[in-house]
Amino acid sequence: MTTGHLVKAADFKFSFNLPTLIEFGYGKSVELGQRLQKLGVKQVFLVTDKGVESAGLLAGLTGSLEKSEILFDIFTGVEPDPSLETINNGYEVFGQKVYDCIVAVGGGSPIDTAKGIRVVAANGGSIGDFAGVNRVPVAPTIPLIAIPTTSGTGSEVTMFGVYSDWQNNVKVTVTSPYMAPTIAIVDPALTMSLPAKMTAASGIDALAHGIETYFSILSSPASDALAMEAIHMVNGHLRSAVERGHEVEARVGLSHGSLLAGMAFNNGFLGLTHAIGSALSGHCHVPHGVAIGLLLPSVIEFNAAALPEKAARIAEQMGVKGENQEALASQAGGAVASLVESIGLPTRLRDVGVTGEKLADIAKDSFKSGMMKMNPRQPSDDEVLALLKAIL
Amino acid sequence: MTTGHLVKAADFKFSFNLPTLIEFGYGKSVELGQRLQKLGVKQVFLVTDKGVESAGLLAGLTGSLEKSEILFDIFTGVEPDPSLETINNGYEVFGQKVYDCIVAVGGGSPIDTAKGIRVVAANGGSIGDFAGVNRVPVAPTIPLIAIPTTSGTGSEVTMFGVYSDWQNNVKVTVTSPYMAPTIAIVDPALTMSLPAKMTAASGIDALAHGIETYFSILSSPASDALAMEAIHMVNGHLRSAVERGHEVEARVGLSHGSLLAGMAFNNGFLGLTHAIGSALSGHCHVPHGVAIGLLLPSVIEFNAAALPEKAARIAEQMGVKGENQEALASQAGGAVASLVESIGLPTRLRDVGVTGEKLADIAKDSFKSGMMKMNPRQPSDDEVLALLKAIL
Repeated sequence: MTTGHLVKAADFKFSFNLPTLIEFGYGKSVELGQRLQKLGVKQVFLVTDKGVESAGLLAGLTGSLEKSEILFDIFTGVEPDPSLETINNGYEVFGQKVYDCIVAVGGGSPIDTAKGIRVVAANGGSIGDFAGVNRVPVAPTIPLIAIPTTSGTGSEVTMFGVYSDWQNNVKVTVTSPYMAPTIAIVDPALTMSLPAKMTAASGIDALAHGIETYFSILSSPASDALAMEAIHMVNGHLRSAVERGHEVEARVGLSHGSLLAGMAFNNGFLGLTHAIGSALSGHCHVPHGVAIGLLLPSVIEFNAAALPEKAARIAEQMGVKGENQEALASQAGGAVASLVESIGLPTRLRDVGVTGEKLADIAKDSFKSGMMKMNPRQPSDDEVLALLKAIL
Repeated sequence: MTTGHLVKAADFKFSFNLPTLIEFGYGKSVELGQRLQKLGVKQVFLVTDKGVESAGLLAGLTGSLEKSEILFDIFTGVEPDPSLETINNGYEVFGQKVYDCIVAVGGGSPIDTAKGIRVVAANGGSIGDFAGVNRVPVAPTIPLIAIPTTSGTGSEVTMFGVYSDWQNNVKVTVTSPYMAPTIAIVDPALTMSLPAKMTAASGIDALAHGIETYFSILSSPASDALAMEAIHMVNGHLRSAVERGHEVEARVGLSHGSLLAGMAFNNGFLGLTHAIGSALSGHCHVPHGVAIGLLLPSVIEFNAAALPEKAARIAEQMGVKGENQEALASQAGGAVASLVESIGLPTRLRDVGVTGEKLADIAKDSFKSGMMKMNPRQPSDDEVLALLKAIL
């Protein structure tokens, strides 16, 4: 194979966990009712947001539930980057009846909200109590079905949930296998009407999941294999999905690439792009995918100096042809930069209103992220600042 | 990427399920006690066989359980290719105390036995009652920890259990996510003393899992990515593991390749090699890995005619250099044949005592296997017979 992962024998250790059953297929989501019937589900708490509802994406799902005589209530009170309070509010509504299943429909925000409500239902307290790694004591008993309507977060198969703590102005991450959905139904048909801008921003996030996991110090040959396939698929389909969103092939390829990236990063975790990205979004309210697209090329160049072999393999997956490893590695960042530009995402911080005086704080706060530790090359404050200045 | 899987848009569907948490590392198995303590386990039913016991492989594990003050009893009544009765016997012993965990230590036989006992404990009846796909009604509540001591079966991460029904002279397969172990602890240190012959036979089985899954009609880009990495790893380490079994690097590489192959074939299933191999083992008592090694090169050649692109990729993972797809595809079977020969496995049926008059029955019985349907090219009776005659 070609993952470029070196087995260092005695010190080669890894874990791999992917508890979510994945069902992938165009049109698959209309089988929701049948699937839940098999699980004996009677009453569903459906978590989504107003955007998904008004885009008409719920019709097929609710129709399928009705056909299978499964009762449901719809909770649409999820905002982008959901707050800790949103989980509390959702849990309050959830507690008003006896539900035996949660179904999440949407991008990362409804899925993360549903993960949070389900864990709080099993453990009590507030979702913020479980921030950190493996701090959820009790496994939920009711199933969670995650149905993504974007191609980017991978949340449908991950054990992560990210919540906004507006009191302290930080993001809170809960990491636990008990957060992982029971089943992910990935139906590219639900992404057909996603606007070009959102397709671009979520797609570049998926690409970054593949690339960051591949570079991660927690990567293994298994996560590498998934990550490389993810990079190849997202690169191969993102441009066409943005330009011609009605093309089934582009949507299927992109959905699948995003799913593979989620499967990979559930095991390899992320790195510097996401560490700086969190700080950038926090300080300047830059949407997550936009922030990731701005940062990813520079981070690849930064990491290529430490892991040229991996950078070369990334370049190959991005379609770069090169004589040798050095030539390939040097083009990896540029290949991603070209993709970012060609799908219409901003390429300079000033394009999204970031001013020079904010850079020092963003650089400093990047180090608050646990993802920084997964990056294969540890930067200094000054190096992060230099990276940001170079893309101002 | 390079998996050669073509996304055919609207008709591209797949499932992916890997519920077992994987912990891989040299020396990892001595953490068993700590790991079980975290799960609150008090009393373990340890399923193994006399070979594992007499090889001294239990000492580290039982020492770890004692250190963590976890009680255990050891059941060694597992024979190779365990029978339906073995599961009944094991369950009877299991029922004499209240155990809250099953630990399986060994090759495929103890692990499959433990899977069977656990499913019978949760459902009653006999394991044969659940033969087929998804026919286990109730999920087991106690955890199963699988600790392989060979590098081949992949059973530590699969949802399959294979049992010998000696009354009807057939193999019974139980396929259910409820068969999958809760945790697989894959510790290459436990394979260091495996004799060369068993290393060769189990290793070629692992290679076949990768190759058959890659060819399977149920393969997906995710299973392809894992399968290709598995082929690359097994090919890269099997020769040295057979020749120099004490080399940590070879054992780690082979263990890892075998694990990846198991992760892949849990999702892509197998094919013609295993279908004929079951019949061959049944009729002539040829050990499983030996039968697989005999058949695999010819099956690759048979399948290469239908899927030359995939055959070419297999050849590449086997280290073959070629100008073009056709040249590569034509060498895939030969590359595997060379490996089989170089690790000292038989290459002709007559070497293992199979005579010409048995071939027609073996060919006929190959079609009883469900794995036949997963093969990308459906052979006639005559084609299977011709394949067997050519290697007589």
